[in-house]
Amino acid sequence: MQTNEQLLSVIENYLAQTELPAEPELLYAPIGYSLSGGGKRLRPMLVMLSCGIFSDDALQALPAAAAVEMFHNFTLLHDDIMDNAAVRRGKPSVFARWGQNVAILSGDAMMISSYRLLSGVPPRLLPQILATFNEMALEVCEGQQYDMDFEMKPKVSVVDYMHMIELKTSALLSGAVAIGAMLGGASEEDCRKLRRFALELGLAFQLQDDLLDSYGDEELGKAIGGDILEGKKTYLMVTAMSRADEPTREVLRRTYRDERLTDAEKIAAVKRIYDRLDVRHLTEQQISLRFDRALAVLGSLSVDPARTLRMREYAESLVDRKK
Amino acid sequence: MQTNEQLLSVIENYLAQTELPAEPELLYAPIGYSLSGGGKRLRPMLVMLSCGIFSDDALQALPAAAAVEMFHNFTLLHDDIMDNAAVRRGKPSVFARWGQNVAILSGDAMMISSYRLLSGVPPRLLPQILATFNEMALEVCEGQQYDMDFEMKPKVSVVDYMHMIELKTSALLSGAVAIGAMLGGASEEDCRKLRRFALELGLAFQLQDDLLDSYGDEELGKAIGGDILEGKKTYLMVTAMSRADEPTREVLRRTYRDERLTDAEKIAAVKRIYDRLDVRHLTEQQISLRFDRALAVLGSLSVDPARTLRMREYAESLVDRKK
Repeated sequence: MQTNEQLLSVIENYLAQTELPAEPELLYAPIGYSLSGGGKRLRPMLVMLSCGIFSDDALQALPAAAAVEMFHNFTLLHDDIMDNAAVRRGKPSVFARWGQNVAILSGDAMMISSYRLLSGVPPRLLPQILATFNEMALEVCEGQQYDMDFEMKPKVSVVDYMHMIELKTSALLSGAVAIGAMLGGASEEDCRKLRRFALELGLAFQLQDDLLDSYGDEELGKAIGGDILEGKKTYLMVTAMSRADEPTREVLRRTYRDERLTDAEKIAAVKRIYDRLDVRHLTEQQISLRFDRALAVLGSLSVDPARTLRMREYAESLVDRKK
Repeated sequence: MQTNEQLLSVIENYLAQTELPAEPELLYAPIGYSLSGGGKRLRPMLVMLSCGIFSDDALQALPAAAAVEMFHNFTLLHDDIMDNAAVRRGKPSVFARWGQNVAILSGDAMMISSYRLLSGVPPRLLPQILATFNEMALEVCEGQQYDMDFEMKPKVSVVDYMHMIELKTSALLSGAVAIGAMLGGASEEDCRKLRRFALELGLAFQLQDDLLDSYGDEELGKAIGGDILEGKKTYLMVTAMSRADEPTREVLRRTYRDERLTDAEKIAAVKRIYDRLDVRHLTEQQISLRFDRALAVLGSLSVDPARTLRMREYAESLVDRKK
């Protein structure tokens, strides 16, 4: 089987060669722009690696992998309208570059294109793969809606937050590995286990994303404290809210819109509370816990453990454990 | 086979029973609201009637018919955002009632739901039906983009206008009859012919819609002259532009935003030009021509002509020919 670097390059080539009509330009140009914007290609990698666990021909999963990546990019396109986000992966978002209507409609065309790619799977597997894809796609929408709902709520529990990211982040990873496994010929039992693996991996991955926003390295490209300045409910924030006394909660609720404070002061104030409540450490613990669970499930598949090595390495490259 | 009234009522029941989760409410409530908004159910009727030409069991096409109607309602939901339309079928649009973000995301979930309904077709037909659905769906997006492009263009030819409505209106009707025919067991040749039928019917139907906006009966619910007041490029407008001399064109281009005129005066001014250029009559001729072509193709199917009677009656109920 190809190395992970080779798989990544095969995916990039396949996406770059996905043929899009030239006209109408405002419908299709944003799709090419969005697809060429880079990113980790995490989801198609999971499709390919999952297929490779059960089959020596991981490349057969390429159309489905591209479908999943196309769908993911569609969600980013529409999310950027809803979040009013002008920048995506260091470039203007489609929304910022072409405006709202183009972003809505080319996003729609992008979702349809993902189903078109998906229709390239072997006909005998199409019914179950389409059903899995649909379920996954709806869950991602549910997650995005809950995420938007949370911004309007004064209080969100840790349990509700975890449920939201299970839908918004893990569902797509879970669907990706399930589709890869089906294509590779996995048993239903192994398919279920891989979904559990991806679910836990997705939680670890999202919590790490939340953590890096407050405690990451600015050189890695992401500005520190953006979530705090937006008053966003992250794992860190909902954990802090659940552990704080009422006066501290009030500070957490208000700091981000306190006009007397500079951005740096707001970030410092919230992080002081996080530190006092041990939020960083608790988040790191949760990431480790979820990641360990993911690896344990991966190890329980009914295949020669050597076949899961590449997936394990890939998962380890995604999540940085601090114990 | 059921009468057309019975088919309609079966479709309404099926749509009403389509199960939607209760939560998150802002994702799913707009879907139920949109689906229950009525309308002619033209597209699902075409799926059922097309299936009924080839099979005595038209009801087998119900999930696919619902999928096509769900998709159509999704397009209305997103079109209303793009067109900033506050009213849909006499009720507030989803966009007006719940806001833009809810309309975007519940529209997305609605499109996914249409694919979920589609996945209920017999597995052996799924690959070709999914491919047909995807092609149709992309064409509808292309049509909507051309329609938006046209609003920015000083001049649109009649040929370009017809191409746009082939995509925006006819593609969905053509996909609907093709899917119905496949489910009924039609030959490829009959399937192609039915698509041609639906394409011509769709053109007649859209041109009639354009005509009614300027020459319809206000009692039928649609206000007269809305397209004229919006400066919209309809078949009447592009035909008038193609026949007018330059000074008259300038009047046509400017009247709708002439602030010295009342709405009634704007409408009267444009219709005077239409009348002078024989636009009404030419449009009626084009509707008859397209409708006659549709019926001729319908008559050429390789089935007992009695089997096409119901489809013929239904088509006749849609288009009012003035000869």
